[in-house]
Amino acid sequence: MSDTSFDFTSLIAPDLPAPAGHWEGQYPPFNFTGGHNAPDEVPTEDLVAAATRALEAYGANLSTYFLHGGYLGHRPLRDFLVTKLKASSGIDCEAGEILLTSGSLQGIDLINKVLLEPGDTVIFEEATYEGCINRYKRAGVTPVGIPLDGGGMRMDKLEEALEELRQRGVRPKYIYVIPTVQNPTATIMSEARRHELIALATRYETCIFEDECYADLIWPDAQGKVSRPPSIYALDKGARTIHIGSFSKSVAPALRVGYVVADWEILGRLVSNKGDAGSGALEQMVLAEYCTQHFDTHLTRLNAAFKRRLDALVEALEENFGTAAEFTVPPGGMFLWIKLPAEVDTSKLAGLSAASGISINPGADWSFEMDEASRYFRVCFANPAPGTIKEGIAKLADICNAEFGVPARIANLEKPA
Amino acid sequence: MSDTSFDFTSLIAPDLPAPAGHWEGQYPPFNFTGGHNAPDEVPTEDLVAAATRALEAYGANLSTYFLHGGYLGHRPLRDFLVTKLKASSGIDCEAGEILLTSGSLQGIDLINKVLLEPGDTVIFEEATYEGCINRYKRAGVTPVGIPLDGGGMRMDKLEEALEELRQRGVRPKYIYVIPTVQNPTATIMSEARRHELIALATRYETCIFEDECYADLIWPDAQGKVSRPPSIYALDKGARTIHIGSFSKSVAPALRVGYVVADWEILGRLVSNKGDAGSGALEQMVLAEYCTQHFDTHLTRLNAAFKRRLDALVEALEENFGTAAEFTVPPGGMFLWIKLPAEVDTSKLAGLSAASGISINPGADWSFEMDEASRYFRVCFANPAPGTIKEGIAKLADICNAEFGVPARIANLEKPA
Repeated sequence: MSDTSFDFTSLIAPDLPAPAGHWEGQYPPFNFTGGHNAPDEVPTEDLVAAATRALEAYGANLSTYFLHGGYLGHRPLRDFLVTKLKASSGIDCEAGEILLTSGSLQGIDLINKVLLEPGDTVIFEEATYEGCINRYKRAGVTPVGIPLDGGGMRMDKLEEALEELRQRGVRPKYIYVIPTVQNPTATIMSEARRHELIALATRYETCIFEDECYADLIWPDAQGKVSRPPSIYALDKGARTIHIGSFSKSVAPALRVGYVVADWEILGRLVSNKGDAGSGALEQMVLAEYCTQHFDTHLTRLNAAFKRRLDALVEALEENFGTAAEFTVPPGGMFLWIKLPAEVDTSKLAGLSAASGISINPGADWSFEMDEASRYFRVCFANPAPGTIKEGIAKLADICNAEFGVPARIANLEKPA
Repeated sequence: MSDTSFDFTSLIAPDLPAPAGHWEGQYPPFNFTGGHNAPDEVPTEDLVAAATRALEAYGANLSTYFLHGGYLGHRPLRDFLVTKLKASSGIDCEAGEILLTSGSLQGIDLINKVLLEPGDTVIFEEATYEGCINRYKRAGVTPVGIPLDGGGMRMDKLEEALEELRQRGVRPKYIYVIPTVQNPTATIMSEARRHELIALATRYETCIFEDECYADLIWPDAQGKVSRPPSIYALDKGARTIHIGSFSKSVAPALRVGYVVADWEILGRLVSNKGDAGSGALEQMVLAEYCTQHFDTHLTRLNAAFKRRLDALVEALEENFGTAAEFTVPPGGMFLWIKLPAEVDTSKLAGLSAASGISINPGADWSFEMDEASRYFRVCFANPAPGTIKEGIAKLADICNAEFGVPARIANLEKPA
């Protein structure tokens, strides 16, 4: 009928993100960005068995919205989480206090929808998840970044910020914090500091938004013991904390399953704003079967695989960047936060390296009003194989040297033959 | 630490939907609401085989966000849709023009997010999907309802409304229409009327938002032939139409997989506003394997099962309500739209019947400013077994008779022994 293309542009609402370009999913060969997992660590065979059991047991339930399981999601997966959260992070909760979401991102979006209005203030770590920073910008919310040290968010700086806000009559809506394997610095906040954080939130009458989506990724010590402090939600007994987590990092990111643990005062509002007729049921069903049988053994194997990749990355950095690359070897996670000399601009470096098939996250994207952000970058190491990591870091050093003279001499020319 | 519960209420944004109550998924025994499917028609065995093939072929891809498939979703499912949409609704499109979403509801939400601002006007059928009506109310959008007849949205009334809006300087953002198995009236708009609709949208410079989520549910005629007009998107060659569809009705609603077909001018904006790091990949992978092999034969079987349930419903209505229930036996779908005598208030009837475990959709919820809405109600028949349908309708007639004296005498007392 119509043979001229209609001008949709005039109908589109203002102030939206720029349209996306066509992209059919070709990641760069040296993919050091994103929370991707190791392809060879996807437990395909066990997932097949889990899918078979899940469909045989619950397949007919797929015919009803919410799987006869209510708004909160597939009950067996929530039951697994009750046990898992108690064991791994000390959380005492019931299945009725857990909402399964389409990735923890949906949890973040729902929490922001329920709590935030334009003009609100939120507190977060000055270097943190890019997705949150962008969301605050788009929501017209004022983020206040708190400096970090080797133990995560600094409590002296948090107190200063809270006091300064109180002086101005501003009550922040929440303190967003990634206490266990902080993104991007990979630090773990001590139990003592978690108590301080709860005390400050209490004193300044705000709540804590705790994101533990990386918290399962901690290497064991020489005795095979994993040291993981109780979550803030556990220490606070859920009184003023909203807790989110995910299976994206511990099983597979393309399975979009995350969760929120919160008081019903919050959870009931997340549910009534969810409005998606449920999150994907098959993924929840398969994860429930899989995790109940295999989660712990899988995690041990996965963390060992991640540690091997981290070792390759550290070796490659030492070999190619030498002392020019400053970093702390992290106790877990899937990313390393690296500082380069002041003459480097990591945003520019990211642009140059992208042309050679190397993706990195520049510090400017992963922080908010942070000093010297342009000296930092984040390298995600969970997805590329160790050999690819080494090759990519060597190439990155060449590019960095050519543009910024850093490292001063390419270290791999100096190493013994 | 904290042993008194914090008052979250003071932190919550205003103007949100009321909090949800606790609900663990117990549907009423006579469940005549919602797009639930028939439990015995979930193809469990074939889904197991599909999940096995999908995980064996693509399992490792679960380790990357977007499955190495780009923002639009799992390519094999989009490839299936290219073939399916051509065959079933005459749409000529490429895989790059299809966005897979978490149910067609996510499609609706994204389209509304990209096109609508508070104060905007949209046009829709005066009786339509409750979810859309509620979304307009919450978004501060003015909906203009167009009366329906046996062929769907009336074009004379649409023209009147468009002209009246133009006189007032209002350009509606879109015309939302369910042309094939309209919800709730289950009518199918003729091809000629679809052309009229496109001509009116063209003349009044707006676009068409075509929802075909029930369009696969059409009974075959005596010769086994299914008469389904080309979609508006096909007739318009996508020039001014955004098309959405779903696997919720044709396979299973708890699998949250829908799709949007649109020009990149729209699609690129839906993608950049999607922000969920992808829709559930496993569901897309399993559906791709399943549908490529079984979709057509499954649909034939499913429609036959739905037709048997409709036959039971029609028989039960005739038996228990007699001439008091007016309806047109529909050519397909999963719901029947029924008119009762003027003395009945179906909202009140719905409340009374709920107490007896019978859920129905009163006309007031499924329409907007429609004449005599309180005489209508919607009965979804795809989920309950035929015997349950008969029992539920008999009970409903008893309740209706006791409250409103309609039907005048309970018909089943009169039927021959």
